[in-house]
Amino acid sequence: MSDIVDAAKRLLVGRPMRSESLGHTLLPKRIALPVFASDALSSVAYAPDEILLTLSLAGIAALAFSPWVGLVVVVVLLIVVASYRQNVHAYPSGGGDYEVATTNLGPSAGIGVASALLVDYVLTVAVSISSAAQYASAAIPGLRGHEALAAVIAVVLLTLVNLRGVKESGTAFAIPTYCYMAIIGALIVTGAFRFFSGTLPQAQSAEFELSAEAAFDQGLVGIAGAFLLARAFASGCAALTGVEAISNGVPAFRKPKSRNAATTLLLLGTISATMIMSILLLAQATGVQFAEDPHSQLTLNGEPVSDHYVQIPVIGQLAEAVFSGFPPAFYAVSAVTGLILVLAANTAFNGFPVLGSILGRDGYLPRQLHTRGDRLAFSNGIITLAVAAIVLIVVFDAEVTRLIQLYIVGVFVSFTLSQLGMLRHWTRELRTEPNPAVRSRYKRSRLVNGVGFGLTGIVLIIVLLTKFTHGAWITLLAMGVLFVLMRGIRKHYDRVSQELALDDVSAARALPSRVHAVVLVSKVHKPTMRALAYARAARPNELEAVSVGVDREDVERLTAEWEALDLPVPLRILDSPFREITRPVVKYVRSVHRESPRDLVIVYIPEYVVGHWWEQLLHNQSALRLKGSLLFTPGVVVASVPWQLASTRGQTGLEGDTFLRGRRM
Amino acid sequence: MSDIVDAAKRLLVGRPMRSESLGHTLLPKRIALPVFASDALSSVAYAPDEILLTLSLAGIAALAFSPWVGLVVVVVLLIVVASYRQNVHAYPSGGGDYEVATTNLGPSAGIGVASALLVDYVLTVAVSISSAAQYASAAIPGLRGHEALAAVIAVVLLTLVNLRGVKESGTAFAIPTYCYMAIIGALIVTGAFRFFSGTLPQAQSAEFELSAEAAFDQGLVGIAGAFLLARAFASGCAALTGVEAISNGVPAFRKPKSRNAATTLLLLGTISATMIMSILLLAQATGVQFAEDPHSQLTLNGEPVSDHYVQIPVIGQLAEAVFSGFPPAFYAVSAVTGLILVLAANTAFNGFPVLGSILGRDGYLPRQLHTRGDRLAFSNGIITLAVAAIVLIVVFDAEVTRLIQLYIVGVFVSFTLSQLGMLRHWTRELRTEPNPAVRSRYKRSRLVNGVGFGLTGIVLIIVLLTKFTHGAWITLLAMGVLFVLMRGIRKHYDRVSQELALDDVSAARALPSRVHAVVLVSKVHKPTMRALAYARAARPNELEAVSVGVDREDVERLTAEWEALDLPVPLRILDSPFREITRPVVKYVRSVHRESPRDLVIVYIPEYVVGHWWEQLLHNQSALRLKGSLLFTPGVVVASVPWQLASTRGQTGLEGDTFLRGRRM
Repeated sequence: MSDIVDAAKRLLVGRPMRSESLGHTLLPKRIALPVFASDALSSVAYAPDEILLTLSLAGIAALAFSPWVGLVVVVVLLIVVASYRQNVHAYPSGGGDYEVATTNLGPSAGIGVASALLVDYVLTVAVSISSAAQYASAAIPGLRGHEALAAVIAVVLLTLVNLRGVKESGTAFAIPTYCYMAIIGALIVTGAFRFFSGTLPQAQSAEFELSAEAAFDQGLVGIAGAFLLARAFASGCAALTGVEAISNGVPAFRKPKSRNAATTLLLLGTISATMIMSILLLAQATGVQFAEDPHSQLTLNGEPVSDHYVQIPVIGQLAEAVFSGFPPAFYAVSAVTGLILVLAANTAFNGFPVLGSILGRDGYLPRQLHTRGDRLAFSNGIITLAVAAIVLIVVFDAEVTRLIQLYIVGVFVSFTLSQLGMLRHWTRELRTEPNPAVRSRYKRSRLVNGVGFGLTGIVLIIVLLTKFTHGAWITLLAMGVLFVLMRGIRKHYDRVSQELALDDVSAARALPSRVHAVVLVSKVHKPTMRALAYARAARPNELEAVSVGVDREDVERLTAEWEALDLPVPLRILDSPFREITRPVVKYVRSVHRESPRDLVIVYIPEYVVGHWWEQLLHNQSALRLKGSLLFTPGVVVASVPWQLASTRGQTGLEGDTFLRGRRM
Repeated sequence: MSDIVDAAKRLLVGRPMRSESLGHTLLPKRIALPVFASDALSSVAYAPDEILLTLSLAGIAALAFSPWVGLVVVVVLLIVVASYRQNVHAYPSGGGDYEVATTNLGPSAGIGVASALLVDYVLTVAVSISSAAQYASAAIPGLRGHEALAAVIAVVLLTLVNLRGVKESGTAFAIPTYCYMAIIGALIVTGAFRFFSGTLPQAQSAEFELSAEAAFDQGLVGIAGAFLLARAFASGCAALTGVEAISNGVPAFRKPKSRNAATTLLLLGTISATMIMSILLLAQATGVQFAEDPHSQLTLNGEPVSDHYVQIPVIGQLAEAVFSGFPPAFYAVSAVTGLILVLAANTAFNGFPVLGSILGRDGYLPRQLHTRGDRLAFSNGIITLAVAAIVLIVVFDAEVTRLIQLYIVGVFVSFTLSQLGMLRHWTRELRTEPNPAVRSRYKRSRLVNGVGFGLTGIVLIIVLLTKFTHGAWITLLAMGVLFVLMRGIRKHYDRVSQELALDDVSAARALPSRVHAVVLVSKVHKPTMRALAYARAARPNELEAVSVGVDREDVERLTAEWEALDLPVPLRILDSPFREITRPVVKYVRSVHRESPRDLVIVYIPEYVVGHWWEQLLHNQSALRLKGSLLFTPGVVVASVPWQLASTRGQTGLEGDTFLRGRRM
C-alpha cells in the first residue's frame, strides 16, 4: 500500500534532491523574467477589461476616458517599480516587504504586511486562473458554464508542477511567456500599422448599443462620476500586483542577485506599461464595447443581446479585429494568454511558500512550513495556497469581476507599509553614513521611496473607498484574522520556548536516584519475554512485572504460567473493576512515583509491529492509548519494546512515513 | 475540548458501570419478552402486507389465497419455535446457532451461520426501521418523502440508547410492547365481534379495482402461479425472524435461563401466530387491497389512483375500518406499531453485539469487538451494526418491499444449519446416554429437530428460488464476503499467535550483554536535559547524545552550547543531505545494532506533551514519525521521555482517551 503511494509520489513530484543541489535551482534573468514577471504581464489580460467594464456603467461616452485612466495606472506602476528597485537593493534576502516592514516599523507592521501578502497571493491564483478559464471558454464553447471546474483542475495541476521544485517550473514556463510577449507585441504592432494605414476594422462588439446604468444616465458627471473613475482606476491597479513578488523572490536569482532582480523589475515594468496603454488605445480604435452586465446593457438594433452572447475578453476581441481574415490568430492569442495567466498563478506558487517559510522560521506560522519537502520546495506552503485558492474559486464561481473586488487591497497595504519602512531605512542609514557620494545616493533613494509611499498610500485609500462594500471587506477580514492568528502562534511559541529554556544548568545535572522498572505483561509470549529481558539487561534498582486483571480465568492462567517460568521477577496483578487497561496502570505508576518522587519509573511496553496497515485493524490499540496517557505522568519514561512480526520482513519503517502511525500496535 | 466530549458522552451514554453490576442487567421474563420478542411480534406489521402485495400481482382473485399462505407460514413458525426450544435447553451459553453449528458441524459451518446471522441482524434493523418510517409517514403526511432521513435518525437514537446498556433499554421498552399487544388484541377482538355481528365496514382501499400484472392476467395458474404463491410464502416467512434472537440471548435471562428462554419463545410463537392469522383474515373480511405498485395496479371507477395516493399499511387500514367512527384509534395503532418496529430493531442491537463479541473472542473478528465498553454494552458491535443498517436504509431509500427481498435468507441458512447440528447433537448424546427415560426424551427432541431441519431446509430452497434475482443475491454475496473475511482474520490471529508462542523457555532467559543508550538532541533545553538525566540514571554501558545536522548554523550553535554544558556525554552529529530527521537516525541506530548485535540499543526521545489539541498542530510530528520507524529496527527499545508543558496542568491523560494520540508531539 505504502509502496504504491510512494511510487505515485515519485511519479508526480519526482525524486528527492540533496541539499547541495539547492544552488542549481537558482534562476538566470532570462528564466527569472518569465517566472516572476508573468503576474504583472498577465494582468494585461484582465486589468484593461476591468477598466472598460467599470466605465461602461456610465455609458459609451465614459469609455473615452479609458486611456486616461490607463495612463494614471501606468504612472503609478512605474513609480512603484522605481521604489521597489530600492527595496531589492537594500533587502536582498527574500523577506521583501515583510522584512522591510519588520526591520523598520516593528513586528506588528511586519505581520500586517505578511497577512496582506498571504491573502493577495491566494487572490493572485484565484483571479489569474479564473481569468484563464474565461479565455479558455471564449475559445472553446464546450467549456462554457464549467469555468469553475476547469479552474480547480488547473490549480491542482499547478500544485503538482510546483511540488516538483522551482527550477523545472522555471524552464518549462519560459517559452510560453516569451511567446505571449511576442504575440501581444505582434498584435500591438499590426494594430498600430493598420490604424495608421486606415485599414483597422471595428471589433465585433462595436455594433452593439451600450446603455448606461440608471444612476449614470447623465454620463460621468458629479461625485458619482468621479467615484466611478476612481473605481475604474482602482480596478486597473490590478496591473501592479506581481511587483512585490520579485522583491520576495530575490534569493532565487543568480548572483548578483539584487542587480539582476532590479533589472528584471524595470524590464517588466516597461513591458507591462506598454502593453496596457496599447491595448486600451487599440480597444478605443476598434470600438470595443465591454459591459459589466452585457445582457442588460448591450442592445443590437434596439433588441437586447441573446442569452447565448458571451463577452469575449478585450485581447480576444482585439485579436479578432486586428488579425481579421486570419481566424487562427484569435485562437493562438487566447491560448497563449490563458497559458500566461496560469503562469501568473505560478508566481504566487513561488512567492507564497517562501513567505510562509520565513513566517514559520520566525514563529508566526506553524514551524512545519519552514521544513523543506523532499523536492526542495516548501510543500506545505504550496498545498495551503492551493487549497485556499480553490475555496475562493468555488465560492465565487470563478467570476473574475467579483474576485477582482477582493484583489489588490492587500498589495497596496504592503506597498504602503513597505515604502514607509524604506523611508525610515534611508533616514537611519543617513544618520551614520559620512561619505557624501553615498549620502547623495541614499537621499535620492529616499526621495524615490518617499514619492512611492505618498502615491501608494493615496491609491490604497482610493482602493479602500471604492471597493470596500464590493468585497474588499472580505480581504480585510481575512487579513485581520491572519494577523491575530499569527500573533497568537508567536505568543505560544514564545511561551513554550521560555518554559523549556535551560534556566538553571546545575539542575540539569541532577540525576534521579534510583530506577524502578515496570514491565507490562498481558500474556506469556515472545514479545513479553523480550521486554523483560531488555528491562533486566538495563539493571534497574527495582524490577517488577505488572498485569491488569480483567478476567479471572485469564489472571489464573497467567499467574500459573509466570510461576512455571521461574523468573527472578515478581508479577503484580492490578485490579480493574471497569475492565479497563489504561487507568489502573496509570494509577499504579502514579502511586509508585508518589511514594518515591526522586526515583525514575521506566514502563516497558511490549508492542508488536505489523507489516500491513490492515493488520493494524486486527490488533488492539490499548498499547498506544496507554503510552499516550503515561506521557502525562511526571517522572516516567515510556519504553516501547518492539517485536517485529514476520510480515514486517524487508521493511525498514521508512517506506511510507505518513502511514507509520497507523502501522503499530 | 476533551472535557466537553467526555461530558457529552456521559450525558448520552451514562456513567461507566463496575463489573460486579453485570449481574443486575439480567432480565426477568416479563422484561425479556418485550426485549427479545418484539422482532417476531413486530413482523406482523409488514409480513401480511408483503403476502398481500405479492399475491396482488395476480389480481383480486389471488388475494383469496392469503389466509392459506399465512397458515403455512404459521405452521412453519410453530415448528421452528418447537425446534428452538430444544436448542435453548441444550446450548444455554448465548452462542445460539453459531455455537450449535460450530460444535456439531465444525468451524466452517459455524462461521457460515455467523455470517448469515450478522447480515440478517443488519437487515432486521433496516427493515424494521424502514417499516416504522412507513407507519409514521402514513400518520404524519409531512413526513412523506423523508422516510429515509427519519429512518436514519431513528437508528442513531437507538444506537445511543443501546450504548447506555441493555437493562435500561429493557425497562424502557416493556411498556410499549405490552401496549402493542393490547392494541392489536383489541383490534382483533373488536374486528371479530363486528364481523360476526355483521357491522364490520369495508376498508378504505376496498373501493379500488385491482388489476393483475400482464403476466398473471389468467390469475394464479400454472407454474408462474405456483411460483408466485411460493414467493408470497417466502416473503411471509419474514415473520419468523427473531426466533433465533432469543437463542442468542439466553445469557441475558434470569435463572433458570434455559427454561425462561424456552417459555418466552413459546409465548411469542403463539402470540405471533395468532396475530398473523387474525390480520390476514380481517384484511380479507374488510376487502383490503394492497398492491405492489398502487399507481399502476389500482383504479377507481376506471381512473388510476391519484399521484398523491399513499398506500397505508394493512394494520393501519384495518384500524381505520374496525374502529371506524373513532379516528384517534388509527393514530394510536400507527404510533404503537411504529414504536414496536423500533423495538424490533432493538432486538438486533441486543443480538448482534453479543454474536460479534463471541466471534471476536474466537478470533474470527477483530478482538476489539470482544472488549466491553464502559457501559457493559459491546459498544463496537453496536456501532458497526448501526453504520451497516444506515448504509442499507440509504441505498434502498427505506423501501420495505425492496429490503424484504434481501431479508430472511440469512435466517433460514442459520435455521437449517442449526437444526442439522441439533440432529447430530442428539445422535451423539444418545450414543453415550444409558438412562432410558433420558434416552426417550432425547429421541423426542431429535425428532423435533429433525422435522425442523427438513422444513427449514425446504423453506430455504423456496426462499432462494423465489428471491435470488430480487435481491437475495446481495445477501448471499455479503455472507460470502463475511465468511472469507472471518476465515482470513482467524488465520491471521493463528499465525501471529504461533509466531509469538514461547517455544523455547531458555531462550527467554538470555539477556542482551551490554546497553548502548542514545539520547536524541535537537536543542539544549529542559526536555533534552531531562532525557539525558534519565538516560544517565539508568547507567548504560555506553551513552551518547545524537543530533541530526540539517542547518549548519544550528549545528554550530548546538555544538557550542553542548560544550559549554561540560557534560560527560559526547555529542554526535549525523549528516542529513536530504534535510530529513528520521532516516539518518534510523540508519545510525541500525549501524550500531549491526556492529554489536548482542547489545541492546535504547533510544531516548525527549517529547513535550501539550494540553490542547490545537497546540499539537503547532509542533512538529517528527518525534512520532521517528518512533514509528525505529520500532521496525530489531534490538531497539524506544524510550519516550515526556516533558509536560504547563498547559497540561491538572490533566491526567485519562480524560479523553481517543484524543490522546493527537495530543502528543
